Amino acid sequence: MKLKEFAKQVGLSPTTVSRALSGYPEVSETTRARVVAEALRLGYRPDVNAVRLKTGRVGAIGVIMGRSGEFHFAEFMAGMAERLASEDIDILVIPMADRDLNEEMQTYRRLAESRRVDAIIVHSPKPNDARIELLDRLGIPFFVHGRSDIAVPHAWLDIDNEGAIRRSTEHLLDLGHRRIAMINGRKGLTYSIHRDIGFRKAFEGRALEQDAQLIAHDTFTDELGFRHARFFLESSNPPTAIVAGSMMTALGVYRAVRSLGLAIGEDVSVIAHDDVFPYLTAENMAPSLSASRSSMRAAGARCADLTLQVLAGRSVSDIHELWPVELNLRESTRPVR
Amino acid sequence: MKLKEFAKQVGLSPTTVSRALSGYPEVSETTRARVVAEALRLGYRPDVNAVRLKTGRVGAIGVIMGRSGEFHFAEFMAGMAERLASEDIDILVIPMADRDLNEEMQTYRRLAESRRVDAIIVHSPKPNDARIELLDRLGIPFFVHGRSDIAVPHAWLDIDNEGAIRRSTEHLLDLGHRRIAMINGRKGLTYSIHRDIGFRKAFEGRALEQDAQLIAHDTFTDELGFRHARFFLESSNPPTAIVAGSMMTALGVYRAVRSLGLAIGEDVSVIAHDDVFPYLTAENMAPSLSASRSSMRAAGARCADLTLQVLAGRSVSDIHELWPVELNLRESTRPVR
Repeated sequence: MKLKEFAKQVGLSPTTVSRALSGYPEVSETTRARVVAEALRLGYRPDVNAVRLKTGRVGAIGVIMGRSGEFHFAEFMAGMAERLASEDIDILVIPMADRDLNEEMQTYRRLAESRRVDAIIVHSPKPNDARIELLDRLGIPFFVHGRSDIAVPHAWLDIDNEGAIRRSTEHLLDLGHRRIAMINGRKGLTYSIHRDIGFRKAFEGRALEQDAQLIAHDTFTDELGFRHARFFLESSNPPTAIVAGSMMTALGVYRAVRSLGLAIGEDVSVIAHDDVFPYLTAENMAPSLSASRSSMRAAGARCADLTLQVLAGRSVSDIHELWPVELNLRESTRPVR
Repeated sequence: MKLKEFAKQVGLSPTTVSRALSGYPEVSETTRARVVAEALRLGYRPDVNAVRLKTGRVGAIGVIMGRSGEFHFAEFMAGMAERLASEDIDILVIPMADRDLNEEMQTYRRLAESRRVDAIIVHSPKPNDARIELLDRLGIPFFVHGRSDIAVPHAWLDIDNEGAIRRSTEHLLDLGHRRIAMINGRKGLTYSIHRDIGFRKAFEGRALEQDAQLIAHDTFTDELGFRHARFFLESSNPPTAIVAGSMMTALGVYRAVRSLGLAIGEDVSVIAHDDVFPYLTAENMAPSLSASRSSMRAAGARCADLTLQVLAGRSVSDIHELWPVELNLRESTRPVR
C-alpha cells in the first residue's frame, strides 16, 4: 500500500500521515496514535527509503569484499550475520577488485555520499592507513578489524598476532629447531608486521640468529603455501620447521613436504595460525597440526556488536579490544632430528 | 554538498535542480545541461536515496544468508561480486537464522516494502516453493538458483544434478560395486531429489537393486559426513563405495574410512560432488578424489549476470540455464575387491 492510498483510507493528508509516523512534533498524540493503529490494522508500512531520508539511518553495515582472502571474509561475515540476525540490520557487501586503494577510497566516498550504510567495517589495516583518515574526515561511523598506528581516534578489535607467532616460534626453538621458515601474510599490513616482530623476538629472547631469507610474505592460499615451502625446502640449507600464516597455507606446506618424500613432524615440523574454519580443522589433518588459534567468526560477531555500540554513541576511543590467542600443540611439531 | 547549498550556488530552486538531475520534462534542456555541468564542476552528487525514491532503483541485489551452507554461499557470493564489481551494484546480505521459512517470507515482504533491493536471488528451491509464489505476488524481480516445478514463471540457473550423480554411480557400478551408499543433501529440496533420481536410475539402467537403507539426507558438513559414513561402514552389511554430496562431506567420509583402519580406494571407493572450493581441491586430497564438478563461483557470477538481464527487461520465461557437470576420475575410486 502506498502512502497516498493509506492517507486516503484514514482521511488525512499524506503529509500529516508521514509526520505522524516519523514522530514529528507538529502532529498531536491522539492523531499519531490513530495513524499508528490504522497502519497496523491495514498493514501499511512506510517506504523505508523515505523514512530513512528523515532519520538518517539505513539499517545496514557496509563491508568491502575483495577477490582474495575470501575464506577469512566469509567466516568473518558469518559471524557478523549471527550477531545481526536479530537486529534487523543487513550487511551491504561492496564487491571490489583487490588491492586497489584508489577504488576502495572512491567506494567509501560514494557510500558516505549516498548514505547507503550506517557504518563501515575496515579490514587488514596498515600502520598508517589512509582509509581510516578518509572515513574519519567523511564523518561516517566506522570500525577497524585489526590495528593501525594512525593518530585518528578509531574503534578496533585485533588479535595478539605478535604473541601468537612468538609463542609458536618459541615452541619450535624448544624442540631444538634453529632453521625455521615463516610464510607470513602480505607485507606492510599491521598484522603481518606484528607477526614478523613476534618471530624475531622469539629468536632474540634466546639470543639466537634468525635468517631473514627464511621469511616469505604473500597471500594466504594453498598454492602459494606449496610454492614457498618447496622453495625453502629445496634450498641448499633448508629449514627443519615452518610457521604457516593460515590453514590454507598449511595445506600447501603439507603437500610440499610430502611431494619431496619427507614426513610432517619427523622430517619437517609445521605450526600454523588457525582462524577456525569449520571445514578445515587442524585436529583432523593427518598428522594433526599444531596451531595458534583465534576464531575469525567470533571476531566478526564481536566487530558487528562493537559497531552497533559505536552507532549507539559509545566513544570510539573506549573501544579497543585485543584478543589473546591460544596455542594447541599436536603431532606436526616434533624435536629436531 | 547538500541539495540546498548546490541549488543556491547555481541560482536555482532546489526543486528545479532536483527535477533537472532526475530528467523530469518540466525542465528545459538548456537548464538541465547547465545543472549537470555545474554538478560535475562543484562535485555535487544528489543523495542516492532521494534519487532512488524517484527512479525506483537502489543498486543492490539481495540474498539471504542462513547459518548452514555458508561455504557454498561464500563461493556463490564471490562469483556475484566478480560480476557486479564493475556495475556499481552491491549485494545486500540479509542475515537469518536457518531453515525458518516464515522468517524468510517475512524478510521478502520487508524487502519488497522497503525497496532496499532491486532484485532477490533465491537458493535451493523446493519443487513447490512458496517463496517463488510470494516473490511473484509481491512484484519484486527475482532469480532462482536451482529449479522448482512451480507454475509461476521464473528465471533460473541450475546444474544437472541428476546427470552428475547418475554418472558417478554408474562409474562405481562399472568398477563392480553393488553396495553403494549416498550422503545426499537435505530432503525435499529439488537438487537432492534430482540426485536421488540420478542414483536410482543408475541402478535401474543395469537392472540392479538399490538398497534404500544406504541413502542419508543431511546438511553438507565434515562432521555429518563422518557420522553417516561411520554408520554405514559399521553396519552388518557395509557398502564398498560411498557417494558424497559435497567436498565437506567427502572430508568426513575420508576420516571415517581411515578411523576404521580402512584405506580409501582399496577398501572403500569414494566419489563426491565438487562445487570447486579453491582451498579444498579434490586433486590435492590424499588419495586424490574422484568427483563430479561444477563451479559454485561461476554459478554466482552467471546468476548475477542473468539477474541484471531480468532487471533490464528480458522475459523471465526465456531465462532457463541448465549446466552440464563434468566428471573427473582419480585415485579414490577403484575396482571392488
